[in-house]
Amino acid sequence: MFEARLSSTLTLKKIVDALRDILNQSTLDCSDTGIQLQAMDNSHVSLVCLCLRSDYFEKYKCSRNVSLGLDLKSLTKVLKCANGDDAVTIKAADKADKIELSFESAGKERTADYELRLLNLDQEHLAIPETEYSCVIHMPASEFARICRDLAVFSESVVIACSKNCIKFSANGEMGSANIKLSQTSKAEVTLQVDEPVTLSFAGRYLNTFTRATPLSEKVKIGMAADVPLLVEYPIEDYGYIRYYLAPKVDDPDC
Amino acid sequence: MFEARLSSTLTLKKIVDALRDILNQSTLDCSDTGIQLQAMDNSHVSLVCLCLRSDYFEKYKCSRNVSLGLDLKSLTKVLKCANGDDAVTIKAADKADKIELSFESAGKERTADYELRLLNLDQEHLAIPETEYSCVIHMPASEFARICRDLAVFSESVVIACSKNCIKFSANGEMGSANIKLSQTSKAEVTLQVDEPVTLSFAGRYLNTFTRATPLSEKVKIGMAADVPLLVEYPIEDYGYIRYYLAPKVDDPDC
Amino acid sequence: MFEARLSSTLTLKKIVDALRDILNQSTLDCSDTGIQLQAMDNSHVSLVCLCLRSDYFEKYKCSRNVSLGLDLKSLTKVLKCANGDDAVTIKAADKADKIELSFESAGKERTADYELRLLNLDQEHLAIPETEYSCVIHMPASEFARICRDLAVFSESVVIACSKNCIKFSANGEMGSANIKLSQTSKAEVTLQVDEPVTLSFAGRYLNTFTRATPLSEKVKIGMAADVPLLVEYPIEDYGYIRYYLAPKVDDPDC
Repeated sequence: MFEARLSSTLTLKKIVDALRDILNQSTLDCSDTGIQLQAMDNSHVSLVCLCLRSDYFEKYKCSRNVSLGLDLKSLTKVLKCANGDDAVTIKAADKADKIELSFESAGKERTADYELRLLNLDQEHLAIPETEYSCVIHMPASEFARICRDLAVFSESVVIACSKNCIKFSANGEMGSANIKLSQTSKAEVTLQVDEPVTLSFAGRYLNTFTRATPLSEKVKIGMAADVPLLVEYPIEDYGYIRYYLAPKVDDPDC
Repeated sequence: MFEARLSSTLTLKKIVDALRDILNQSTLDCSDTGIQLQAMDNSHVSLVCLCLRSDYFEKYKCSRNVSLGLDLKSLTKVLKCANGDDAVTIKAADKADKIELSFESAGKERTADYELRLLNLDQEHLAIPETEYSCVIHMPASEFARICRDLAVFSESVVIACSKNCIKFSANGEMGSANIKLSQTSKAEVTLQVDEPVTLSFAGRYLNTFTRATPLSEKVKIGMAADVPLLVEYPIEDYGYIRYYLAPKVDDPDC
Repeated sequence: MFEARLSSTLTLKKIVDALRDILNQSTLDCSDTGIQLQAMDNSHVSLVCLCLRSDYFEKYKCSRNVSLGLDLKSLTKVLKCANGDDAVTIKAADKADKIELSFESAGKERTADYELRLLNLDQEHLAIPETEYSCVIHMPASEFARICRDLAVFSESVVIACSKNCIKFSANGEMGSANIKLSQTSKAEVTLQVDEPVTLSFAGRYLNTFTRATPLSEKVKIGMAADVPLLVEYPIEDYGYIRYYLAPKVDDPDC
């Protein structure tokens, strides 16, 4: 039996918003330590991982490991029916074919209970090797989202070049070209830890879907190393994260 | 000769907004006691009644009963040309083929006069029998609108069950099910007068069009009784109302 | 070599917004006195002129006259990538095939450089004769925009009648008719200088595209005289203007 309660629905809405453009359906793995999700995006190019520790919840009970196959469009529709400040309780019986979401308004004069049918989904658990990134960038999540959006106007490919003092995002297309440079500042809004400079090229449209997680965090962490997938990580307060992985373009002439 | 003046256009805009999704064209019956409108919706399933007493108006003159056939889309377009705080004067001559709307801004340095062609519409006046409702619910209009919108996601049918202490709205479909319960609260936001509990099923899409009247009133009144059309009433301050009537679904398996 | 710098991108955004609905591509003529643009709209009915004096810019250098052929859609896309309060520097080499726009955020920790390809455009410089207008109207730009929008609902043609005390805008169509009258007020929001009353008819859809310049100025100046194109002028602070010209409809039966 699984039961988890949050005093606010807002973060749950943001998490599902961060996932639903990249995944149609996915399996939530619940254990006594918390909730995990790992899946390739719909086109099997990028990988997304969600981790949320049990102590994030106001109440958390998971007597037996349970895998919940969810349709994220349906889940989004149910979450739209809740106010951000409603408390939410999620329940599933062992071997259940449905999940129950109960929303309570502050004064409790209103309760709304929703049941969603569960799906039987194939699961492929990919081992993600621990990676040493030669460049680790912390920057405002909103700035990263804006850059990804702006560069998409110019080209399908985005080149990210990180050096000791500066990270540069570039795109080059028929209309013209764009170069956006951020420096490490005294205000520490952008911090760069660089063992070795790296220049890599990525498909901009995946970067753009990753930025759906922007409302979750003030800062985003970017990890890069040669011949290794890019890491884009959004922390969920101190209780977990959403991580996106994307392999660099290998034969990109811009690179 | 008919002439009526309002010091603000805002309520008139709200009234027409409440009608225009449910009616394309309709006849306004003006007499010395006020304005009435009664019509079946475009698909002849629900009924809408507007009543606005003459003392609602700053100035009101109706020397002879007059029926004004209006295209509500055109009227909406004209009202969009007015600011909410413009004063409006509506005029029609006896046997006129047009109606005149004059808008004045506060300082009167701007006047805008619009003439709309009148339509010759067939009218069917239905006698609405006085009904004793076994359940009468008063609740915030915005809450009713939200429930109708949320349940539409799940099913075409909405079941409303009213008992002594609680009103429950339910919908049940392929995706899952939804149950929203409101209790009578000490703050008197929801009040229930129940002679006999009733459970009835309705087509959700009509309920949703009724909620276009939400901006008119803080509270909505709902009347229900077995085998009788549902009443959904939005008061217009103390001067009148818009009432919607909808027959229950008879052979609904959810019911 | 051409170089011009503005401490804010906002006015530049507004200027391009005022042009891009009426022109797809156009040539900017830069000289040491400032920037000029003159072009027929896409359908060759109306004429638009931009004039921006060199002292409008924080820094301005133009060692040799240069004509920059721009695609306004592309320029709009680049300007969308800038914040309104970013400083912008525009550069072009002599005989360049591209223009460079550099945006700097306030603290300078972010620089974004964009290059746009230039176009080779045919140019036709039309001599605009100095005209004495028998009616000159100054009115709030937002009011003029609202009137043009409202009248478009009724007819393709807008009749403007200006007399000593009053300017009247009218439209007459199948749905009905509209008459909007503005008087010269003590608050001087509307001022009328009338040597001779004029009534002229214009294609409303051009008037509506002119009002894209509304965010540039508090006031719009309108000049009218018999058998002469209408002038609609939006000042750009004290440093220049955008002027639109539109010939009256000659055989309009409403007129």
